[in-house]
Amino acid sequence: MNMIELRKPYLLFLGDAELAIDAKTAAGVAYWRPDHCLAQLRLTEKTIDLGLPDMDVAQAGKAGAGTFILGLAPVGGGLPDDWVSICVEALNNGMDIASGLHDKVSEIPAIAAAAKASGRAVYDVRVPPADLPCGTGAKRGGKRLLTVGTDCCVGKMYSALAVETEMRKRGASTSFRATGQTGILIEGAGISVDAVVADFVSGSVEVLSPANAPDHWDIIEGQGSLFHPAYAAVSLGLLHGAQADALVLCHELGRTLVDGDYPDYALPEIDEAIATNLLMARRTNPNAEVVGISVNSSNFPEAEALELMADLEAQHGLPVVDPVRTGVARLVDNMGAIT
Amino acid sequence: MNMIELRKPYLLFLGDAELAIDAKTAAGVAYWRPDHCLAQLRLTEKTIDLGLPDMDVAQAGKAGAGTFILGLAPVGGGLPDDWVSICVEALNNGMDIASGLHDKVSEIPAIAAAAKASGRAVYDVRVPPADLPCGTGAKRGGKRLLTVGTDCCVGKMYSALAVETEMRKRGASTSFRATGQTGILIEGAGISVDAVVADFVSGSVEVLSPANAPDHWDIIEGQGSLFHPAYAAVSLGLLHGAQADALVLCHELGRTLVDGDYPDYALPEIDEAIATNLLMARRTNPNAEVVGISVNSSNFPEAEALELMADLEAQHGLPVVDPVRTGVARLVDNMGAIT
Repeated sequence: MNMIELRKPYLLFLGDAELAIDAKTAAGVAYWRPDHCLAQLRLTEKTIDLGLPDMDVAQAGKAGAGTFILGLAPVGGGLPDDWVSICVEALNNGMDIASGLHDKVSEIPAIAAAAKASGRAVYDVRVPPADLPCGTGAKRGGKRLLTVGTDCCVGKMYSALAVETEMRKRGASTSFRATGQTGILIEGAGISVDAVVADFVSGSVEVLSPANAPDHWDIIEGQGSLFHPAYAAVSLGLLHGAQADALVLCHELGRTLVDGDYPDYALPEIDEAIATNLLMARRTNPNAEVVGISVNSSNFPEAEALELMADLEAQHGLPVVDPVRTGVARLVDNMGAIT
Repeated sequence: MNMIELRKPYLLFLGDAELAIDAKTAAGVAYWRPDHCLAQLRLTEKTIDLGLPDMDVAQAGKAGAGTFILGLAPVGGGLPDDWVSICVEALNNGMDIASGLHDKVSEIPAIAAAAKASGRAVYDVRVPPADLPCGTGAKRGGKRLLTVGTDCCVGKMYSALAVETEMRKRGASTSFRATGQTGILIEGAGISVDAVVADFVSGSVEVLSPANAPDHWDIIEGQGSLFHPAYAAVSLGLLHGAQADALVLCHELGRTLVDGDYPDYALPEIDEAIATNLLMARRTNPNAEVVGISVNSSNFPEAEALELMADLEAQHGLPVVDPVRTGVARLVDNMGAIT
């Protein structure tokens, strides 16, 4: 199967992005995987600086860069000509290309031709492998944690990476399993699960998180929410395919409506989100448990946030963390109960 | 959007199928839509007879056939040369082709060339439209019934068609909305929902069953089951996208395990299947109700089947029908409560 597995180290392309939000994928790679980052490529002096060495494509090629990471969308759609030229140059300097963009970079004629001539690969990481199987539901070795959410964009990827980092710090055997384009570029591997044909969603998660040693933990990045009127199918396929032993419920403090244009859809109550996720998760793993709640509390000042988190903790009898403010150690402590 | 809409009437291709099971799609078209069937094309004397006039391609073309229906898979994979020739001849005689096969008939070079030359269309009905939107969850006019199941292959399509037929008989304004290849060939329209990319499943159902007059009922064919370890994602996307007012739970009497190779997966109890489907359905339609249970009781002799159905009815307080043995009139009677 054509699974993505990026060669390290990376040259992170930052284009002319001046705002952190426009370079968030590259920033995520630099933040979570600094050891995999050789250098950054900035087109202007005003371009955001991730604190990596600046290199051009030729310098990075000589220094042994394995993959050119194209994680930011150009303003207004199509890849500009000078970006295409830089991609071609990266291929000619021995790098593969990994793109998280919607449009397929591998199908731009100049890039396709250069890839062919150089023998290098171009990975459009939003495109899943072509030959995914249907799910089997068969029990497999190893332990799994899946982040689930009350909504989209509530910190499921961030929480998963924080848990993986904390476990690694403690010497645990663990892998982050990426299911979206940013996560895939961070990890250098993964499957863009929301782009998988519906019949194969749970099968794709079985492939992404295969049988492992009994004490190994896969930390699987969740997507969407069972309560989302557009994306719940993805979330349920993930839940069934993950056969998660542990769930972490992610939530943005203060959010009351489904993110985006869904004025009629209130977010579920936390109790309801826990109960429904457990109900569905237990179909493929009867021992699934929620080990904690991970909130994004950035809309509140520190004191108020901590108070709200303490309230949640009292209400639900589960550790409540904010990965940024408090770290996720208490989630990992609670996973001990089911290891 | 490239929605399938087949031209009538049909020439049903039966190949050399000698067993009813091998020609079940064509048989379904002939059974449910006799008025749309002009003729059948049988290659041998032993080929199954659906009771339609026998015509060859030239005769059917002269008689005004609009679409050549290729609903049966050849033994051993690829389309045999003589079948390809017949398809080319059908195109040259003014027919479109509609195929329910896994392999794309539209990509067979001789057929693609003939389609181009003749200006006729080749529909691979398993392939969904390319530009489906994400779901909006917005309330739309009209009423909807969705068939859901304790498993795959428990009569969801058959039950939906039976309900639509019964409602039509009563003069109701109603449409059957097909979500699988057999249903699409029967109806001449629809979307193969399990082949839709996961992010767009509920959106595809919103497209398939658009806003309608307040008293119009769409009867939507369900797929899979919320309890199926491979296909639950499809079922949840359907449930959310359908915003069903009425659910019919379909079940095969006597089946205890998930169909196929799932030895560890018991079917849900009927109570559990009802409760879980309602829980999830009410996210997009808080008024969703189960209006009855539709069983396939063909594994039991008549008297025993009727007794088991009476037991189910007493246990769950819902009409229990077998579309073949009892008809579905009592389901439709019960829909009156929510019209």
